[in-house]
Amino acid sequence: MQKKIITLTTDFGTQDGYAGVMHGVILKTAPHATIVDLTHEIPAQNIFAAAFLVESHSKYFPKSSIHVVVVDPGVGSSRRILLAESESQFFLAPDNGLLSFLNKRKNTRFYRASNRDYWLPELSQTFHGRDIFAPLAAFLANDLDLKMAFEEIIESDIEILHSGRPTIKDNRIQGKITYCDHFGNLITNIRSEDLPGDSTVTIEVGNHRIAGLAKSYSEKNSGEILAIINSFNHLEIAVNSGRADRVILNYKNEDVVVFWH
Amino acid sequence: MQKKIITLTTDFGTQDGYAGVMHGVILKTAPHATIVDLTHEIPAQNIFAAAFLVESHSKYFPKSSIHVVVVDPGVGSSRRILLAESESQFFLAPDNGLLSFLNKRKNTRFYRASNRDYWLPELSQTFHGRDIFAPLAAFLANDLDLKMAFEEIIESDIEILHSGRPTIKDNRIQGKITYCDHFGNLITNIRSEDLPGDSTVTIEVGNHRIAGLAKSYSEKNSGEILAIINSFNHLEIAVNSGRADRVILNYKNEDVVVFWH
Amino acid sequence: MQKKIITLTTDFGTQDGYAGVMHGVILKTAPHATIVDLTHEIPAQNIFAAAFLVESHSKYFPKSSIHVVVVDPGVGSSRRILLAESESQFFLAPDNGLLSFLNKRKNTRFYRASNRDYWLPELSQTFHGRDIFAPLAAFLANDLDLKMAFEEIIESDIEILHSGRPTIKDNRIQGKITYCDHFGNLITNIRSEDLPGDSTVTIEVGNHRIAGLAKSYSEKNSGEILAIINSFNHLEIAVNSGRADRVILNYKNEDVVVFWH
Repeated sequence: MQKKIITLTTDFGTQDGYAGVMHGVILKTAPHATIVDLTHEIPAQNIFAAAFLVESHSKYFPKSSIHVVVVDPGVGSSRRILLAESESQFFLAPDNGLLSFLNKRKNTRFYRASNRDYWLPELSQTFHGRDIFAPLAAFLANDLDLKMAFEEIIESDIEILHSGRPTIKDNRIQGKITYCDHFGNLITNIRSEDLPGDSTVTIEVGNHRIAGLAKSYSEKNSGEILAIINSFNHLEIAVNSGRADRVILNYKNEDVVVFWH
Repeated sequence: MQKKIITLTTDFGTQDGYAGVMHGVILKTAPHATIVDLTHEIPAQNIFAAAFLVESHSKYFPKSSIHVVVVDPGVGSSRRILLAESESQFFLAPDNGLLSFLNKRKNTRFYRASNRDYWLPELSQTFHGRDIFAPLAAFLANDLDLKMAFEEIIESDIEILHSGRPTIKDNRIQGKITYCDHFGNLITNIRSEDLPGDSTVTIEVGNHRIAGLAKSYSEKNSGEILAIINSFNHLEIAVNSGRADRVILNYKNEDVVVFWH
Repeated sequence: MQKKIITLTTDFGTQDGYAGVMHGVILKTAPHATIVDLTHEIPAQNIFAAAFLVESHSKYFPKSSIHVVVVDPGVGSSRRILLAESESQFFLAPDNGLLSFLNKRKNTRFYRASNRDYWLPELSQTFHGRDIFAPLAAFLANDLDLKMAFEEIIESDIEILHSGRPTIKDNRIQGKITYCDHFGNLITNIRSEDLPGDSTVTIEVGNHRIAGLAKSYSEKNSGEILAIINSFNHLEIAVNSGRADRVILNYKNEDVVVFWH
């Protein structure tokens, strides 16, 4: 049998063993699965950040990978647990907007977890990552018939996250900073395909005006602010050898404006 | 040969490679072992927290799993290194109270590491996780005869950790908050089996009075304090969409009182 | 085929999935590799710390292990990507000093990544860990002919990191604290082989004078400062049951002097 990859993306942190015990439950049923901790440091209950990272990273994983995303403020309530099958990969998450990025893709099928026989026999009220998501991920890794554990959702009525695209008009884009990474790089909701291919752009953010896009961080002087297309294909504001989040302190509320002639 | 799981629980943190190098030493001798990092973020030298998490999580791992617990303020001193065999799992830890939760279980056998031939040839004074625990975990994963590396302890004189059970009298339980998790949830030493099955309880902690147990965090309003039986089967104080440790700041010194009629 | 180990040492942190996605890229091409996260918490752009940890830890991994080190402030610039083959292990890193510790070893061969066919087809400007290092690590794990992806560097003109050895003269060594670990232990650039084998030494650091080397942390009273040969075979300043970085606050600028008679 092919060795399946299961990725985990949660807001559980790594201090309490909540993520580790999910490995235990998965390996009990699917001993040959390879588990990759994509991240357990999603800010608590930040559905947007989890969806953004899973959308960005999942395409680098092999076909038939199983992506488990558990940011679940509604744990223990009646919210559904969704499975999506898209571009030969699986995505398992609570129905709270985490999988809404898949709704735009063609040929995505949605299911809901419908058969408790494939969950742990005793369910806690607070930790469905261990009690439901982990056993279902193991079920998927074992390549069994989906219909045993899931029921297809015919009308796509899943929860949608409104992520906010930038405003694009004439020679001007107005966007937002939507994610700050470990290095203090500020990632905007403006994508490379939003930008003109052949014009030199000017970027304004806070009281900074940046002329043109850099090709690398080190192209600028140390400590200098710059704009660059990052590895997610988004426009990013960065500081060479420094942190942009310390230069644009109020970044959550700043507009990012791009214009060209 | 069956693929063995080795879990690691330490206070080593993840920044210095101390945990990673244990993987290297294990895989050198037991290349087919699957290593799960349960957590490396036990607060420095907090034996209680490590024992609590290993007791809580280990039962979710398959039989024959090997749980390695290294919180070891006495590293380099003459403290013994213990192996316990209990309910078809192995536990390896310094003799400093980490394994005292196993002392209560029936059919647990204790051993001490007695044969240096199975340790790394050069021992450091400060890192027995790498030099003794990792090679012994690999030894166990390779399914060799225990007696080659360990000697059974006949009289059970292992170090005992006094964890403190709550006081239970008539219709009243008085307990403590003993663990704060990544989400700021405050976990008490009161277990679900301590509570009456059929009565509505009232919980008092700090200057808060909580009526009844919640069935899910989201049953309460955002920001509201609640009490719930958590995934460890302990009574937990939490705040929906918030952090209980920011509401009960002095939680280490607060009593938690449960009463009913 | 032998199961290869790939270790990852980066300054990517674990919050954004940058490390996790490298697992995905590696496993896509080398599904049977075992990936060990040595650490992703190198302080941002701290080449010295990464080189120190990889030099210290790599020898505990099996032969044919592949150590990938990505601390890469020059990402996207024209800096070369190096492969070193040394003592039957591989080391992959940008040419910025990370691999200069290997330059001193005999029988080390250096190569540069020369064939883009073995990189991801689309290169980002900011994340060569994913786009170049991960696919090359997978290439190495698959045991293919090195010359397909790399070109040997005949004259060794790699970037050298000047790490600073202590001054040793007569009965006196003057060194520096070069690394502070998770426990607040302060690791110096003085190695056990710099010290006299048979004399009692005195250590001076800040306004502390320490008589002799301890054999274990717990040999001293709780809270007492001590000096010990640590698991890297370096002289370390520590505090039993405490943090030396809170006792010697200005440790980055303090000399450590060892003398004997």
